[in-house]
Amino acid sequence: MKILVPDAYRGALPHIDDADVVVIAAGEPVPEEHVDAEVLVVWGQPLDVLTDAARRMRHLRLVQGLLAGPDILRAAGFAPDVALASGVGLHDGPVAEHALALTLALVRMLPLAMRRQREHAWDAVLGGAMLERAHDGRVISLEGAQVTVWGFGSIASRLAPLLRGMGAWVTGVARSAGPRHGFDVVAEDSLPEVLGRTDVLIMILPRDESTHAALNAKRLKQLKPSALVVNVGRGTTVDEDALLAALRSGHVAGAALDVTAVEPLPESSPLWDEPSVIITPHVASGRPQRAERLIEANVAALREGGDITNLMAR
Amino acid sequence: MKILVPDAYRGALPHIDDADVVVIAAGEPVPEEHVDAEVLVVWGQPLDVLTDAARRMRHLRLVQGLLAGPDILRAAGFAPDVALASGVGLHDGPVAEHALALTLALVRMLPLAMRRQREHAWDAVLGGAMLERAHDGRVISLEGAQVTVWGFGSIASRLAPLLRGMGAWVTGVARSAGPRHGFDVVAEDSLPEVLGRTDVLIMILPRDESTHAALNAKRLKQLKPSALVVNVGRGTTVDEDALLAALRSGHVAGAALDVTAVEPLPESSPLWDEPSVIITPHVASGRPQRAERLIEANVAALREGGDITNLMAR
Ligand SMILES: NC(=O)c1ccc[n+]([C@@H]2O[C@H](COP(=O)([O-])OP(=O)(O)OC[C@H]3O[C@@H](n4cnc5c(N)ncnc54)[C@H](OP(=O)(O)O)[C@@H]3O)[C@@H](O)[C@H]2O)c1
Ligand SMILES: NC(=O)c1ccc[n+]([C@@H]2O[C@H](COP(=O)([O-])OP(=O)(O)OC[C@H]3O[C@@H](n4cnc5c(N)ncnc54)[C@H](OP(=O)(O)O)[C@@H]3O)[C@@H](O)[C@H]2O)c1
Repeated sequence: MKILVPDAYRGALPHIDDADVVVIAAGEPVPEEHVDAEVLVVWGQPLDVLTDAARRMRHLRLVQGLLAGPDILRAAGFAPDVALASGVGLHDGPVAEHALALTLALVRMLPLAMRRQREHAWDAVLGGAMLERAHDGRVISLEGAQVTVWGFGSIASRLAPLLRGMGAWVTGVARSAGPRHGFDVVAEDSLPEVLGRTDVLIMILPRDESTHAALNAKRLKQLKPSALVVNVGRGTTVDEDALLAALRSGHVAGAALDVTAVEPLPESSPLWDEPSVIITPHVASGRPQRAERLIEANVAALREGGDITNLMAR
Repeated sequence: MKILVPDAYRGALPHIDDADVVVIAAGEPVPEEHVDAEVLVVWGQPLDVLTDAARRMRHLRLVQGLLAGPDILRAAGFAPDVALASGVGLHDGPVAEHALALTLALVRMLPLAMRRQREHAWDAVLGGAMLERAHDGRVISLEGAQVTVWGFGSIASRLAPLLRGMGAWVTGVARSAGPRHGFDVVAEDSLPEVLGRTDVLIMILPRDESTHAALNAKRLKQLKPSALVVNVGRGTTVDEDALLAALRSGHVAGAALDVTAVEPLPESSPLWDEPSVIITPHVASGRPQRAERLIEANVAALREGGDITNLMAR
């Protein structure tokens, strides 16, 4: 069995008996001598390389993505009998940590602090960072804050306990309601009520048709004017024009975006200059954690006919 | 019994039987008709108001500071038979949260991200924010990071579990060694070894003679060049010239300071413009938490002859 691993992946290689693990260039078409591989690991290949691989690799049985997001694997057009597996779970720690960093930066007024720093101004008031609520009404602490996590999957299961540890009240939103990992989770029908009491909304939704512009003008209006928005899922899940309008009209107090609808975010986007916005360039996670074990387990499942972990619905 | 509470304190007033709780202006000398008070609560009074109170209030038995730092109460010159009690414990949550916000901001490269944001530049590399270590060698995650908390008292007891919850290895430094709250704590003699393996150094020392310029050129040299420094204690505990020199020569990778040696930090300070430095204007905590209970307990102790909580050595 031949397994192709892209060189963009820098972690440990899988150890698999009687298999050839071949490292290929992520940015190049799969070399002709390797189109016979049965397993293709995906990390860092652009979509056109994957579309080309889907066309040329006739022996493929498993495409093992190391990304948590299923969007690219779906878009590449692999044949229906090829198993697609995502990297859900490999990024939980890094993305949860980045989401917490962005959340605390907004809550603790770091964009304003850094603006004042550039002015050499010791602003002891700092927008009310030491009051019960900031001047714009935002919470200045996670202690007692209502935090809603929209997209309550693998990453959220790591993030939610950290937020609770800081004293926040956490509510999840997913496709189906019911408690998970000890947290209340609601479905779409409860959004108006839940958004209405949310201090911080953290979006961790995957990209697909059902999540396109999930946070739109209507949902933004359901938030309090003091609400803060963080997005570490996919940029397509937020209507950026509506978000910008809400920020400018004071209907939302601040936002931190690790992902944008178009990436790289165009130089002309007005989001860059919005004072209450933090933009990080999709860096929440670039390091799948212990990916070699997932590859090993799924190759074993393939050989022995077991269940494939993170198998994606086709 | 008369108890004076300054108006700068916005929390709940203490409920005490057979006592007059009088709210006075924090910025003004104690009014003549109230110099007979037996208890003076301190929050927001400038030093000259306290020095004046120390001279004029002949019936004082207890000065109850709501600040965690003992420095101002000591400096005011209250008579030796007046009990001085600090507000240690009233700020643990807020200061721990701000310290974590600053730490995560440094670890997750937010100063660089915000600089790139001003340039409208989507910098997908962001100094190595997605590698095992950043280009300057700093940790890009608290997972597995060595975090040293110098000053391992009340605030640290709240912060250390949060850091451990993020996967960090936490070591405390205090006047005496030995485990506290489930964490290893060392004393000064171990500093060379501990600093040598520290990824993030968080300073939470009080201001006094023993802590003056504790983090000096010698100690900074004991750190790794990739180390990050956070100070939420008192500014006098860091030699700012030595810190600046270490940052500029690449002997320290970044710093976040909520406190500075002189406050407000002078407009001319070179710290403002140092790219790897975050400055917040002493805003970690401005809200003593449940201070009324401490006042109630210490007035009861005074009346009944019990132990005064947070009694300061004179
Ligand atoms: N910024 C980064 O660097 C980075 C890194 C990794 C991942 N990500 C993104 O984060 C996303 C989530 O990752 P994950 O590992 O947590 O994925 P996951 O375990 O699959 O969780 C996805 C969650 O979204 C919910 N969801 C999906 N469609 C929904 C809809 N229409 N309405 C409401 N909820 C919906 C799911 O609900 P059910 O549980 O009810 O199905 C589930 O709770 C990934 O898809 C990826 O795009 C970003
Ligand atoms: N930025 C802000 O807004 C803010 C807010 C509140 C407080 N603070 C500052 O934070 C400081 C600490 O607060 P806290 O409530 O944690 O105080 P604390 O409970 O009194 O703890 C002080 C710690 O410092 C240690 N220490 C004192 N002198 C030392 C020395 N020479 N060498 C090594 N360790 C020494 C003590 O060691 P031992 O335990 O061995 O005695 C103790 O662990 C306060 O004094 C205040 O100045 C700042």
